[in-house]
Amino acid sequence: MFKLNYGDLVTVYIDEKRRYVVRLQPGKILGTDKGFIKHDDIVGKSYGESIHTSQGYKAYLLNPLLADHQYSIERVTQIIYPKDASYMIYLSSIGPGSKVLEAGVGSGYLTISLANFVGENGVVYGYDINEEHLEKARENLARTGLLDRVVLCKGDVRKELKHRDLDAVFLDLPDPWNALNSIYKVLKPAHPVLIYVPTINQVEKTVIGMKRSGLFIDIHIYELLMREYEVEEGATKPRTFMVGHTGYIVFGRKII
Amino acid sequence: MFKLNYGDLVTVYIDEKRRYVVRLQPGKILGTDKGFIKHDDIVGKSYGESIHTSQGYKAYLLNPLLADHQYSIERVTQIIYPKDASYMIYLSSIGPGSKVLEAGVGSGYLTISLANFVGENGVVYGYDINEEHLEKARENLARTGLLDRVVLCKGDVRKELKHRDLDAVFLDLPDPWNALNSIYKVLKPAHPVLIYVPTINQVEKTVIGMKRSGLFIDIHIYELLMREYEVEEGATKPRTFMVGHTGYIVFGRKII
Amino acid sequence: MFKLNYGDLVTVYIDEKRRYVVRLQPGKILGTDKGFIKHDDIVGKSYGESIHTSQGYKAYLLNPLLADHQYSIERVTQIIYPKDASYMIYLSSIGPGSKVLEAGVGSGYLTISLANFVGENGVVYGYDINEEHLEKARENLARTGLLDRVVLCKGDVRKELKHRDLDAVFLDLPDPWNALNSIYKVLKPAHPVLIYVPTINQVEKTVIGMKRSGLFIDIHIYELLMREYEVEEGATKPRTFMVGHTGYIVFGRKII
Amino acid sequence: MFKLNYGDLVTVYIDEKRRYVVRLQPGKILGTDKGFIKHDDIVGKSYGESIHTSQGYKAYLLNPLLADHQYSIERVTQIIYPKDASYMIYLSSIGPGSKVLEAGVGSGYLTISLANFVGENGVVYGYDINEEHLEKARENLARTGLLDRVVLCKGDVRKELKHRDLDAVFLDLPDPWNALNSIYKVLKPAHPVLIYVPTINQVEKTVIGMKRSGLFIDIHIYELLMREYEVEEGATKPRTFMVGHTGYIVFGRKII
Repeated sequence: MFKLNYGDLVTVYIDEKRRYVVRLQPGKILGTDKGFIKHDDIVGKSYGESIHTSQGYKAYLLNPLLADHQYSIERVTQIIYPKDASYMIYLSSIGPGSKVLEAGVGSGYLTISLANFVGENGVVYGYDINEEHLEKARENLARTGLLDRVVLCKGDVRKELKHRDLDAVFLDLPDPWNALNSIYKVLKPAHPVLIYVPTINQVEKTVIGMKRSGLFIDIHIYELLMREYEVEEGATKPRTFMVGHTGYIVFGRKII
Repeated sequence: MFKLNYGDLVTVYIDEKRRYVVRLQPGKILGTDKGFIKHDDIVGKSYGESIHTSQGYKAYLLNPLLADHQYSIERVTQIIYPKDASYMIYLSSIGPGSKVLEAGVGSGYLTISLANFVGENGVVYGYDINEEHLEKARENLARTGLLDRVVLCKGDVRKELKHRDLDAVFLDLPDPWNALNSIYKVLKPAHPVLIYVPTINQVEKTVIGMKRSGLFIDIHIYELLMREYEVEEGATKPRTFMVGHTGYIVFGRKII
Repeated sequence: MFKLNYGDLVTVYIDEKRRYVVRLQPGKILGTDKGFIKHDDIVGKSYGESIHTSQGYKAYLLNPLLADHQYSIERVTQIIYPKDASYMIYLSSIGPGSKVLEAGVGSGYLTISLANFVGENGVVYGYDINEEHLEKARENLARTGLLDRVVLCKGDVRKELKHRDLDAVFLDLPDPWNALNSIYKVLKPAHPVLIYVPTINQVEKTVIGMKRSGLFIDIHIYELLMREYEVEEGATKPRTFMVGHTGYIVFGRKII
Repeated sequence: MFKLNYGDLVTVYIDEKRRYVVRLQPGKILGTDKGFIKHDDIVGKSYGESIHTSQGYKAYLLNPLLADHQYSIERVTQIIYPKDASYMIYLSSIGPGSKVLEAGVGSGYLTISLANFVGENGVVYGYDINEEHLEKARENLARTGLLDRVVLCKGDVRKELKHRDLDAVFLDLPDPWNALNSIYKVLKPAHPVLIYVPTINQVEKTVIGMKRSGLFIDIHIYELLMREYEVEEGATKPRTFMVGHTGYIVFGRKII
């Protein structure tokens, strides 16, 4: 059985609100409000095993999943949450070896997910106009070990781009309608663009831009609402509070 | 530019309600209520180009995306729709090379998606107790060209299974609580199980089973509601009708 | 016990999809695709009892509730559905004796509800610019026996109105922002306006108009989604299809 | 114009999170974290006018609406929120003069609404088995001036009740299925029962109880989700957080 060692990535799970993704280093300590854990004490354990914090709380050692990173990456921007990221990725139909463009990368959370699904033989061209965002995205990608699948680029995707024949484009920009012409050119024919925007006005402008351009077809606008449930025998119900809004997803396919 | 040829897979898109995924064959004809299209006339065209039906309707030739297959596969069972399939796959964090188990495969729609994301170096063990379902899944997978990544197995996953060290398990069974012990054994430690059930009673039984077993942690229950929007300049609104319910997703991670 | 007689209003309920609100008349027949029922055979029965159609289906005789009328009124326009009508009425806090204005009345379905809640000592001023709508609303109100609580007025509420000191105003207009000044004048100080609009663009224009005018406070925008459930022992779940959108409700209170 | 005087009820509205329903008394002071307001300074003002707190914040003087009371009543139990209360009341089709039964009254928030809609000539029989709840409901009703329309009763509605010919029954009990026989007897034939329960298990038990009893028809189960929107010109979107669950509404009509 695989034994955790220095350099490995592990999700330390104490409870619903306390999960930490850490890369094991000699002498390092994970501090939490439920006590601390020495990295040295994790080494030699296996995924799935547990350990106790200095205050005696049980902490499980788990293999990091994509959704764990939302709690551990450092954020410089709003991230695209799993419910939306997952649907965008699914609709794009990317997979091992895909070459995709993403803009703006922001904190790099979607980038991590894209890098996971394109794999070692794929590539994510991650654009942002903000140097600080790129730097944070680089750090977050490095921590997750996926930086080698990503080419981070400082630049404005609303302007002419050098890429061609990409499998999909993912946009999280304030004005995606201004990037339609440039991203059209980098896409393989018939391949999709996935656009994430938080307001309905941006949806309207984007979709009208896409329709007027005549460059895209099969245009759809999606919004996902996610409810979580609490199960107790004989007393099962949805959680009292939920996230009521993150953003809208606009989808289209390039035609020629 | 890539030219379509016999043997290639193409999505023929006429409008919102008319999209067909076909594998090009000499002499074959795609019949629709908006006229027919000869496969022979598609050959030599490129993805992204259009062609006219015999009744003069424009039809776009698109590269097939995962979501297209829901309209073209033959169904012997209810399928797990993209909004749910995508979230299950995302939560599982599978990727290129992953080895996963799915039961029951039913019509094979989720299987197609899993096969896409695990890639050529991955494998999907697809179980069903129903021979007819397996046969239909085989046909649907063969049409999409992904059958070589899938091992279809007739069998009952509620009983001892020979697999070990799988990256994730996906269940769509009437009584998933009866499969918890057997699927626990096939999972890598700390790896996830994703369970799809249509009724809230099944959610309750599954979650109580998971909690009582002590075999899983980080248990969550999700429900996704998807709204689509209609955009007209100055008159944007959600669609009048929506799918109000498909099913619930139960998530958990194996502990040891 | 009350016995049904000619002139009485009764909801004939056969099943979920077959409910008819009829006023009993000698010699009249209610025809349905499950057989017919003679009004004469209903006379002498009590609410809560059942009768059989000519094809042998059981039909229950019920006292008409507000929501029954949505299935029986003749429509010349989209109606405001119970989930929205109820919330608008609740927020308005009208009750017995209230004096309210409604525009446009359309088919008169909201008018029926308002007339119910203001009672015999209240009054609903129902405006529409369309003569045909007013005529249909008059018929629908007459059928339900509530016409004497309603003053139907042909006129444009975006222009100066003669009413003063009304308890609440209900608007279902294409451009409610153009009626803000005129309806402000007819409202009692601090009393509410309830505005129903189907598109988000109308929401934006209305709310911006209200804010800029400085005439209203406590402005809120609500959207209600209604799910229905299907109960079977051990297999309870939401209905597969639901109405995904009707409209938005804008609320505000007059300040001076 | 109406001038506020001692004994009058007024909603003091400072902002979204600060609204207080007070009955004016000589020498009394309303304290808030934005400064205090003397009741004496409110007297002589009109609804719709504003006043300043001791810290200089503007406070509007509004006529109390039903929904205001949810922020000002003292709570001994969870209340039924406006979105649910309004739909229950609408479905019941009560109005001026109606006689209704409610159990349990809890803090009396639904009771306040029922009392508003039945008016001076109606009556609400409000049951609770808990003396403390009844006392709190009595206080809350007295504050709103609606106590004279309500008969508060200590008692268990699962047992034989003396009432007959009521227009509607509203239940908010842990086990409404045990009250079906007793409330059946107090209802007018064909009149409705409205049941509010927080868990889906209670929905199932209630509906199965209603179906098995053969006492009710037209049984429906509703759940309402409410989204609020934030409007800014060119940046309109739903609020980030929402209440994801309050409870379910079960509806049925008595047959004989």
